[in-house]
Amino acid sequence: MRLRRKPWIKEAINEFTDILLPETGEFNWPAIFGQEKPLHIEVGTGKGKFIGEMAQANPAVNFVGLEAQLDVIYYAARKVKDGGLSNVRLMHFDANQLLAVFAPASVDRLYVNFCDPWPKNRHAKRRLTHSRFLDKYRVILRPGGELFFKTDNERLFEFSLNEFADARLRLRNISLDLHRDETFANVTTEYEERFKKQGLKIFRCEVIF
Amino acid sequence: MRLRRKPWIKEAINEFTDILLPETGEFNWPAIFGQEKPLHIEVGTGKGKFIGEMAQANPAVNFVGLEAQLDVIYYAARKVKDGGLSNVRLMHFDANQLLAVFAPASVDRLYVNFCDPWPKNRHAKRRLTHSRFLDKYRVILRPGGELFFKTDNERLFEFSLNEFADARLRLRNISLDLHRDETFANVTTEYEERFKKQGLKIFRCEVIF
Repeated sequence: MRLRRKPWIKEAINEFTDILLPETGEFNWPAIFGQEKPLHIEVGTGKGKFIGEMAQANPAVNFVGLEAQLDVIYYAARKVKDGGLSNVRLMHFDANQLLAVFAPASVDRLYVNFCDPWPKNRHAKRRLTHSRFLDKYRVILRPGGELFFKTDNERLFEFSLNEFADARLRLRNISLDLHRDETFANVTTEYEERFKKQGLKIFRCEVIF
Repeated sequence: MRLRRKPWIKEAINEFTDILLPETGEFNWPAIFGQEKPLHIEVGTGKGKFIGEMAQANPAVNFVGLEAQLDVIYYAARKVKDGGLSNVRLMHFDANQLLAVFAPASVDRLYVNFCDPWPKNRHAKRRLTHSRFLDKYRVILRPGGELFFKTDNERLFEFSLNEFADARLRLRNISLDLHRDETFANVTTEYEERFKKQGLKIFRCEVIF
């Protein structure tokens, strides 16, 4: 998600020190949340619509949203604060650093929603479903932990299915047109709402580690 | 594939007794083909374009095409005869009877191309990628044997991916738009040629048993 740089955000974001976690340190999740609950993380939280609604609907789960762009995370933090959501924390973090933040087998579920498709082959390694990232997910997810993946990009979805299959991961609930049937309570992201209005297809699957 | 009933076919087909196998009996494939080679079968051979071209390009493989409609199989037999293909046999057979024709672990690869999507949920069991059929394929394929599947039907492909995944089968080379890249020598069927001209997407994957 691209936003025009807003210089005031660097200051304004200090309002959210309770929601926005520091970028270094030991992360003791039960201590941070004040309660031990299943831990779900979203890689690329954007403006926080998805994680906010998920957290509201699932109070028995702790959510951590990672977002690499500080300008964007401000809006996510605003949403979490306004919603009075005590089970969400946000981090200004790059997906490459997952292993520095999450201990092995500490995460129950991982959400990747509408990540950058990096269409050029020479950038394939940057895709969040590249085997390089799956190896990281395998470490931080508990055995049987899940990755829930959504994208509007057909080529990225095709690439991802093959990466999952090549990594011998089990797939479940594969959808080639998520909004065709709407058989389950799908929480949408900002992007997804826009794509849905444009009539674009959304691809989705669940991957079991 | 639907054709208008042609009453003369029942007679004319007798021309092909060397290609068209009887509907009962013991099927000793090395004896039938006169040589032991890997055995590839196509379920729903239609007018035989695919199996004919595959057989021509792969003389080291024996091919058996199953087709439930006699009117259609006539044209396939014609092609095989005209092409002088000694490594193809055809059977007027229903996919339900696979276990009666092929011994356990006797088949190396199975092709299912553009099978009937049976769009109604109550007909799901008739789809050739339903778990009911996967159970049969698992018997006749040798361990590590493969199913190569193509369809133009998005819902059938989605259904099939989920059936494969639920059966814990390993997937490979999943394509959501086969003709987008054409990175390998894809032999097309009659249907596929038509769909390709119409610009329709073709879905494909390989399944390892």
